Amino acid sequence: MPVYENPEGEQLVEILQRPSYDFSKIEKVVEPILEKVKRGGDKALRKLALEYDHVELEDLWISEEEFASAADEVPATLKEAIQIAYQNVKKFHEAQRQQQLVMEVMPGVVCSRRSVPIQKVGLYVPGGSAPLFSTVLMLAIPAKIAGCEEVIISSPTNRLGKINPVVLYTAQLVGVSKVLKLGGAQAIAAMGYGTASVPKVDKIFGPGNQYVTVAKQMLAKQDVAIDMPAGPSEVMVVVDKNSDAVYAASDLLAQAEHGPDSQVILVSTSLKKAEEINNEVVRQLAGLSRKKIAEKALSKSAIIVVEGKKEALKIVNDYGPEHLIISIEKAEKMAEKVVNAGSVFVGEYTPESAGDYASGTNHTLPTNGWARSFSGVSLDSFVKNITYQRITKEGLLLLGPTIERMAEAELLDAHKNAVTVRLNKLREDGITGKPDKGSPEGGESLLFGKR
Amino acid sequence: MPVYENPEGEQLVEILQRPSYDFSKIEKVVEPILEKVKRGGDKALRKLALEYDHVELEDLWISEEEFASAADEVPATLKEAIQIAYQNVKKFHEAQRQQQLVMEVMPGVVCSRRSVPIQKVGLYVPGGSAPLFSTVLMLAIPAKIAGCEEVIISSPTNRLGKINPVVLYTAQLVGVSKVLKLGGAQAIAAMGYGTASVPKVDKIFGPGNQYVTVAKQMLAKQDVAIDMPAGPSEVMVVVDKNSDAVYAASDLLAQAEHGPDSQVILVSTSLKKAEEINNEVVRQLAGLSRKKIAEKALSKSAIIVVEGKKEALKIVNDYGPEHLIISIEKAEKMAEKVVNAGSVFVGEYTPESAGDYASGTNHTLPTNGWARSFSGVSLDSFVKNITYQRITKEGLLLLGPTIERMAEAELLDAHKNAVTVRLNKLREDGITGKPDKGSPEGGESLLFGKR
Repeated sequence: MPVYENPEGEQLVEILQRPSYDFSKIEKVVEPILEKVKRGGDKALRKLALEYDHVELEDLWISEEEFASAADEVPATLKEAIQIAYQNVKKFHEAQRQQQLVMEVMPGVVCSRRSVPIQKVGLYVPGGSAPLFSTVLMLAIPAKIAGCEEVIISSPTNRLGKINPVVLYTAQLVGVSKVLKLGGAQAIAAMGYGTASVPKVDKIFGPGNQYVTVAKQMLAKQDVAIDMPAGPSEVMVVVDKNSDAVYAASDLLAQAEHGPDSQVILVSTSLKKAEEINNEVVRQLAGLSRKKIAEKALSKSAIIVVEGKKEALKIVNDYGPEHLIISIEKAEKMAEKVVNAGSVFVGEYTPESAGDYASGTNHTLPTNGWARSFSGVSLDSFVKNITYQRITKEGLLLLGPTIERMAEAELLDAHKNAVTVRLNKLREDGITGKPDKGSPEGGESLLFGKR
Repeated sequence: MPVYENPEGEQLVEILQRPSYDFSKIEKVVEPILEKVKRGGDKALRKLALEYDHVELEDLWISEEEFASAADEVPATLKEAIQIAYQNVKKFHEAQRQQQLVMEVMPGVVCSRRSVPIQKVGLYVPGGSAPLFSTVLMLAIPAKIAGCEEVIISSPTNRLGKINPVVLYTAQLVGVSKVLKLGGAQAIAAMGYGTASVPKVDKIFGPGNQYVTVAKQMLAKQDVAIDMPAGPSEVMVVVDKNSDAVYAASDLLAQAEHGPDSQVILVSTSLKKAEEINNEVVRQLAGLSRKKIAEKALSKSAIIVVEGKKEALKIVNDYGPEHLIISIEKAEKMAEKVVNAGSVFVGEYTPESAGDYASGTNHTLPTNGWARSFSGVSLDSFVKNITYQRITKEGLLLLGPTIERMAEAELLDAHKNAVTVRLNKLREDGITGKPDKGSPEGGESLLFGKR
């Protein structure tokens, strides 16, 4: 990895630059696929599966038999590991439930805010050489905790039309029974538009290749909500002169093996330690099965040597990494000052892979600098907060004139009038606006328990 | 308004259809504007202001003198009204703060989740004939509560280069001192890309015309986060045989006056009441200053008469209205069953205009069916939740093997290795994994107060 000492200004900006994609080029590939599914429905999906995945699909959905046999095909030790991860992720996401807010803002003016599950969600689980069952955990657990009415998983099959049994086992464990045998942009189109056999969902989640990502963003304009814009995965590791070089190198490589476009950046307050880690990366790299992928990613990565912690923190917040590993002394102190990051791994015994799989946090995180404005996936991602208000006669007598004046100043007559007609009636009826004249419900709850 | 009795299937779908826009047509207008600002910066902004707003801007920002004189130009009664609204909105949004979550998920595995303000936000406030100071309240109040470091407002000027003093007074009241004299797609481009004098923000909020909306969505692909996709404003009003026709008609008209493309739908469980309200709409319409706009909106709106509350509720949830007014007996009961809506107005004395201005809830809400998946703007919109984890040596001995097994099954060697190198070291050092061997911090806090 190239080493830069105290880079500043333009040079620093360039080092921290993410790879940019030609969106419009990918859009041109994706657009006809979306169009085909929109028009052709299930028939188009079958044709596309044959064309792109070389598989003839009789049924688009995983059958009960396929589900039933899945558990038998997963080794017991792996099942046990998945169950432990399941428990941790579930615990941490259950704790994210938001209490209903009910507040009497003024006498007779009650406002409330409640979490309501998004009704229908689609979870995309990429296929490929490895079964990404961890994605099933990270997306389906919060969906089930939120109480989404319909939870669909879509994942590409192999050429025999099969989805890896570990993925199916994990889906079952979490309580999802609807798994679509579809991958790529066509899977996103199926869930975004809906077809005769695939329900149109309200929000689509999950990682994927460039075609999946662009399909999600194209549909997000008018058709369906998505979790977040996605880019290549990235890590920033912060070390000092006392950090363990073996651990740091292993963390950099864990990110580098994701893909040739993975972003890996080491920030060190010590040149000597930086060089030590750089050598250790080379040593560990030799033994990895995904060596070639990691090599490519590393060639575009960087080691930045800085004066001290303050400078390191500035780089962290400027970059806004998806994953941030702080392996320095008093790591917690720096963690408290981070304002832009997806998930933070504090201390030397907290490798990123802990969060990727089993610590309890979610691994679906904002990349490409989106950590400046987006959170990772959480329970919040599967609910929306609806606000409510209820005003009593007395409350309207109190607040009404304020609304009238403001509507008048914004030249919105009819907005004002909606208050005026009510105030006129109340005054006609001799209602004075003194508090405690009793709510119109005759002592019943005004709004979700208030009064 | 046309009346439909018990519509079903295709007919109901058609009645509830929102107007669709030709995105690509507007994109073609917006694209060159974005490009000009991206390349030409401040100079391009001045040129565009001259071209579109017919104003020569010396400074792009409101000066201290302009701010200083604003308060004097606002009538005292209006100031008082704005202050009351300010207090209510502030109270309700302050109550939305989320407590920091810290949890020891397993012995030695601590996860945390904290709200961190989005650092830089841009708030767009539309101009036009009326000063939309209520938008300033609804966007700037949660931004300030969240603690965003940089809060910018952008609003078009009149031909004299002035922004309405009520808007400036409100900005000052809320504590925003940076106001850009820019409107339209170019304002969005300025805040999204940044120029020499305009900082690039992390997220853009606010309503606007089609050009503003499309500009926001175009930039949302790669450059900046936005609050939500936007469409024409809409209301659904639910009434029964005992509802007050005058009130219901006034609510329908308050929505209709927004714009010719406003969506107004009445759902009634009584044909007689529906007809009564329809007549009352005609009567009230005659006296409105924005009569022509309201008329246009009403011509495309609908009255749906249904059998009972159950059918009414189904239509509400199928449609997912931005604003929902429930003016029936036991309105709270129906409100509890709503799953798709932006904000709900419960009971006859809660007109939509209360929420538009002063009840305390936010008026920036999801339109166009997005209420199925989006919340309205809230304190949450101005923060992101960063997750953290810290694992002790003992914690890693406990959880490590789980991570190793899962990484292995996903064929990610280096992910596994990041754990293995640590476990090897710990075992070499004779650390056994028994709990309470002491954290590596020597009794200090592990993560934000835990242990």
